[in-house]
Amino acid sequence: MNQSLRRMEYAVRGEVVNRAEQIQKELKSRDHTYPFDEIIFTNIGNPQALGQKPMTFFRQVLALTDLPPASGVDHPDVAKLFPADAIARAKELHTMMGGMGTGAYTGSQGVAGICNQVADYITARDNGHVSDPSNIFLTNGASAGIQMVLTAAIASSDDAVMMPIPQYPIYSALTELLGAKQVGYALDEANGWSVTAETLRSQHAKATADGVTKVKALVVINPGNPTGQIIDRDVLLDICHFCADEGIVLLADEVYQRNVYTDATPFVSTKEVVCDNNVENLALASFHSTSKGLIGECGRRGGYMELHGFNPEVQAEILKLASSGLCSGVAGQVMTSLMVRPPAVGDESYESHEAEEAAIFSSLQRRSRMLIDGLNAIDGINCTDTYGAMYVFPEIDMPAKAVEHAAAEGTTVDSVYAISLLNRTGICVVPASGFGQAQGRAGFRTTFLPNEGQMKDAIGLFELHHNEFWSKWG
Amino acid sequence: MNQSLRRMEYAVRGEVVNRAEQIQKELKSRDHTYPFDEIIFTNIGNPQALGQKPMTFFRQVLALTDLPPASGVDHPDVAKLFPADAIARAKELHTMMGGMGTGAYTGSQGVAGICNQVADYITARDNGHVSDPSNIFLTNGASAGIQMVLTAAIASSDDAVMMPIPQYPIYSALTELLGAKQVGYALDEANGWSVTAETLRSQHAKATADGVTKVKALVVINPGNPTGQIIDRDVLLDICHFCADEGIVLLADEVYQRNVYTDATPFVSTKEVVCDNNVENLALASFHSTSKGLIGECGRRGGYMELHGFNPEVQAEILKLASSGLCSGVAGQVMTSLMVRPPAVGDESYESHEAEEAAIFSSLQRRSRMLIDGLNAIDGINCTDTYGAMYVFPEIDMPAKAVEHAAAEGTTVDSVYAISLLNRTGICVVPASGFGQAQGRAGFRTTFLPNEGQMKDAIGLFELHHNEFWSKWG
Repeated sequence: MNQSLRRMEYAVRGEVVNRAEQIQKELKSRDHTYPFDEIIFTNIGNPQALGQKPMTFFRQVLALTDLPPASGVDHPDVAKLFPADAIARAKELHTMMGGMGTGAYTGSQGVAGICNQVADYITARDNGHVSDPSNIFLTNGASAGIQMVLTAAIASSDDAVMMPIPQYPIYSALTELLGAKQVGYALDEANGWSVTAETLRSQHAKATADGVTKVKALVVINPGNPTGQIIDRDVLLDICHFCADEGIVLLADEVYQRNVYTDATPFVSTKEVVCDNNVENLALASFHSTSKGLIGECGRRGGYMELHGFNPEVQAEILKLASSGLCSGVAGQVMTSLMVRPPAVGDESYESHEAEEAAIFSSLQRRSRMLIDGLNAIDGINCTDTYGAMYVFPEIDMPAKAVEHAAAEGTTVDSVYAISLLNRTGICVVPASGFGQAQGRAGFRTTFLPNEGQMKDAIGLFELHHNEFWSKWG
Repeated sequence: MNQSLRRMEYAVRGEVVNRAEQIQKELKSRDHTYPFDEIIFTNIGNPQALGQKPMTFFRQVLALTDLPPASGVDHPDVAKLFPADAIARAKELHTMMGGMGTGAYTGSQGVAGICNQVADYITARDNGHVSDPSNIFLTNGASAGIQMVLTAAIASSDDAVMMPIPQYPIYSALTELLGAKQVGYALDEANGWSVTAETLRSQHAKATADGVTKVKALVVINPGNPTGQIIDRDVLLDICHFCADEGIVLLADEVYQRNVYTDATPFVSTKEVVCDNNVENLALASFHSTSKGLIGECGRRGGYMELHGFNPEVQAEILKLASSGLCSGVAGQVMTSLMVRPPAVGDESYESHEAEEAAIFSSLQRRSRMLIDGLNAIDGINCTDTYGAMYVFPEIDMPAKAVEHAAAEGTTVDSVYAISLLNRTGICVVPASGFGQAQGRAGFRTTFLPNEGQMKDAIGLFELHHNEFWSKWG
């Protein structure tokens, strides 16, 4: 079988999660012996699995778009269940799909009208720099777009992908699967997980010094996952120049662009930086998703990719690759349309939609602070202050004996710690080693998605377990 | 860039289709000069794009499953728009998803309850041989499952995938993309596109004689695409033994299992044949989809894969691969649930659903005969009598000068013919060379999905164009 697949790791669905799913089954038995009654899954950014409510308007439009007109938009009683703006929007989407409805394959890049809406959204977001709909690909989540660009970019086993350390493991997993090399560039934990182009340049120089490794792509995750930092304009520009100079395709993972919980460091897209500064000779692929933000529609598998500055021949090959998968799911395409075009001022659903969104935003903001402050109050857990995404990535002081034990068992101490935490508290986190970290560091990634009540309890449990872990191994 | 991607071809979305999409844009202009006003897309099995209506009950359940309960199943007026069985089914699906609803990532294999339903469906279909839900993977259409199995099976560039000639180009495309070799086995056009295990054995022996090529996987498409034949039980058994003897993973593409328009040759699943005959040491992956059958829900990207007899370690690697894509779209999972569990006798929607399905079936059956008979009535077009799937794959007599012209242009004569047909009539077919065929043969694949009125016109246009083509080149 495929040895690259065997080597591939994907920690967010790895050993700890498998164990958690096993325990969840056992918990259904009345005479289980675990000191808890439920698993709290904080291993993955899956808001609605932890109780976040879907946006009502978005779901109403989605449902109406799927209903055949006679049973939906044209039904005499439709207004009893659906607001007028949802009905109007569904009709608009029906028209856009040209009568094919949601049951047909769309074009390989998605429904043309929705690509237009995405381009308009990007143009408005990026300081008026016009986005061309022919560069928009609607994708099954961001993952599918990332896979297409990396598949196109990597030509041989000498090729490499540069990615932050720590990184979201889709990048290491796909790079491994495609048979290429990983070149990490360290984020600076002491400085809020910041990234500098100097680090990129030195890592690149080191990796390519022997002439064998050719870096073909570089990943920037902004806001960071698992690290939550927001990258500022100057640093982004520096990275763009570096990639342009070296002929490296830049992948900008911007799926958390709406998840910024401070006004001090607003999100700026890489595309805006490129256009504002007329960066030339740069191939940039930017990704967004309906799974994150304030929508959290993970099950929809919606998202888009925008290509900018690609060689037309390479872009044609990416289109061919998209076409071999026929099209992304239409429910995801509809959700992407809604994400980029929520109800407008004056629409019947505008106020209720805004209220739902604001409640989610402020709750995420509160939970982010609650978790960071709560973890920092625990002796031996150190959590960098960050204001983006849905995760924290604390460093944990580990007892030397536990480190030795893990090494003897052929595992990492943070895996031992995460399994121990799970067995004691039911909280499922991902060991930091699954994302990559500095030598000698240990920790975990957890989302701040459990509700505020659960979160308070969870912080108590983190402390309880940490102390017990030290009592056992310290 | 990736040279395997550059070499990859995917004819159903290839040159002719790109040209058709271009013409479609030009047709919107009032002063276009084409002798037709619309493109008839018969390049791909996309029923709802050509006017096939969705199943009302399925869409009602889908819509209700997506609506938050207060706006849907629990709304006081819900019964004004939705029948009781659709409401009950949506509640059942809500319960199955454990409160997460359709907006959350599911497990990597899909919603457990839906995997159970699929297993029950397979058990009932396959003569009572029990299907284990832990072997079911819900996938984004069949394509995603096929990609996972081939990715796991192929380990090096010496590895090969055996596939029928002609075949559906997802197999050649993925094999190329994965850097492996293709080994074709010819279907016998003179005998209704039949396949024999003797052909497989001799092709396998020929391909592996030098010891370099290692066949790792073999594809059977039943009912055939693009060829429409139905493979009988004995032949399937022979193929299974061959694969078991040679240690080859067998991929059974059974997405057209409901598209059999004769009682003379019923569909039998490969899994049933394996279980009925206790074939041992065979790794079998079977695929089904919500895109075909009588549902035609292509935009949903739903489907499932059943693994049987896989080495547990390999199956674990396939699960890891599935997990790296997080999960298939939930709308596709819901549609898969509905496909395997339509309304039952006594349910409010039973009769109307059965009537919708029967109308689609009988119309497909009529159109199949209409197209085969109509094409065979044209001098120089020869269409094998087949009774399955959604396609015909006629052979076309080509003028020698057109063959020479195509060769001089570095293309195939059936590409020249297909482009000529498109420019003259607006009918978009796929050149047979995109699927593979015997040396010296030429033809095309067309679906029989246009409605019955269009189909009659189309047959007239096929004849008109064929005669003009011969006048030009004969």
